[in-house]
Amino acid sequence: MAAPVVVVQGASRGLGLEFCKQLLKWKTPAVVIATCRHPDACQELQALAARGPGTGTGTLSLLQLDVDREDDVRGAAERVAALFGGVDLMINCSAMLHPSGRGETSLRNVSAQGVMATVSTNTVGPLLMAKYFSPLLMKGGGAFGAQPPERSQQHRGLLVNMTARVGSIGDNALGGWYSYRLSKAALNMVTKTLSVELGRSSNNKVVCVSLHPGTVATDLSAPYHRGVPADRLFSPQHSVSLLLALIQTLSMEHTGGAYSWDGAPIPW
Amino acid sequence: MAAPVVVVQGASRGLGLEFCKQLLKWKTPAVVIATCRHPDACQELQALAARGPGTGTGTLSLLQLDVDREDDVRGAAERVAALFGGVDLMINCSAMLHPSGRGETSLRNVSAQGVMATVSTNTVGPLLMAKYFSPLLMKGGGAFGAQPPERSQQHRGLLVNMTARVGSIGDNALGGWYSYRLSKAALNMVTKTLSVELGRSSNNKVVCVSLHPGTVATDLSAPYHRGVPADRLFSPQHSVSLLLALIQTLSMEHTGGAYSWDGAPIPW
Repeated sequence: MAAPVVVVQGASRGLGLEFCKQLLKWKTPAVVIATCRHPDACQELQALAARGPGTGTGTLSLLQLDVDREDDVRGAAERVAALFGGVDLMINCSAMLHPSGRGETSLRNVSAQGVMATVSTNTVGPLLMAKYFSPLLMKGGGAFGAQPPERSQQHRGLLVNMTARVGSIGDNALGGWYSYRLSKAALNMVTKTLSVELGRSSNNKVVCVSLHPGTVATDLSAPYHRGVPADRLFSPQHSVSLLLALIQTLSMEHTGGAYSWDGAPIPW
Repeated sequence: MAAPVVVVQGASRGLGLEFCKQLLKWKTPAVVIATCRHPDACQELQALAARGPGTGTGTLSLLQLDVDREDDVRGAAERVAALFGGVDLMINCSAMLHPSGRGETSLRNVSAQGVMATVSTNTVGPLLMAKYFSPLLMKGGGAFGAQPPERSQQHRGLLVNMTARVGSIGDNALGGWYSYRLSKAALNMVTKTLSVELGRSSNNKVVCVSLHPGTVATDLSAPYHRGVPADRLFSPQHSVSLLLALIQTLSMEHTGGAYSWDGAPIPW
């Protein structure tokens, strides 16, 4: 049996980097393909890639990819297709709050440029990843998630878009953060629409979900840590271990949905 | 008492043009400001503007505005501010299915450029309109919608974003139309976020809603009319008369929501 293949998009830091680390220690040694914009600048990923296959650990391959460039995404998918043929799990991690690093507190802070840049990375990026990698996910070995006994309900790939609770329209009581909120609401729609297209076939289904990692101590949220109670601010390690455990419970029953780190559905 | 002031953005054809026509016959003669990209090319609007004020009819002013250009939106708001001081009702109508005129039937048809162009017009445009026109809506006379007796719950302006049922994430069972669906889901988030920011003050609230016009026989839906049962395909006249009647029932109780032409809430 071939090693499970995972693509972690946006792996240079934060949740993406942590997903790579934990997946390298996966019970079944996995091939982890880590993508980022500037592999040369990412020493942690380089060190992980340099290790090579060890006893009982997976291997990491680094791939240059900027989700804002469709040609990059296509090229990366072609390379993965040639090297591995299929993908079992793809996790889209790249995201920004806003190009300035700060969410808009009011309409005054909104600019067309800021919204468009945020949508490009947070929404269009994962959609392009799905466009070029879904044929590979449809050829996955179904190594991640839970497989029901009925063969027609089993899946071959699992696609995770990292969303955020503030991307829930129904849950939005505070306002502000226009770019981030609308980009994540749009991403939830992307996940739902993908789940229809990738759930039709009887023998190559892909489970598509949006997952909320909690409030995690990463660069993205750094300006806001002071306002978060300590027990609600997760480390990337803690968040990713919860998310990987959750991923292992997912099947076609869950496809199209948005879920929090604890498995609770998030309203649209 | 000054005449009610209405801004209809995207007025050159379809629903926008029809809103102008019906608002010119409004029971209280209104000032209708019709915006479009190329006023010189729009003979119907020019004819309406040339009529001038008649007995018992409103007046129409034409204003050049491309929602894809933030400078245009700012300039138009400055002109309206100088001429009228406040706005009672703003309706954002511009929308595209996709730059090609056809919604994507599968991931193969998705392109970054197509998504971004659709988001720019359908989502960012209405958000920019809100950015520059909300100060004017906060100075409106509350001439549209239903005003409750409690003064603190009354509104001064009413903002309508034209959404579509296919922009509902929860209602999406068919898939496809990636660009349009995600742009309208994002627009629903814009409406909700605006409703928080523009609902805080006790004396200059703005009701913000997304409205679904039904399936209307316009250029946007033209490629798809054959598949729609005749009694479900509305004329612009019928749809706009239903929407204007619905608008007259709206108050701060409804702010932030998405509603169908018959007043039924649309799930996110």
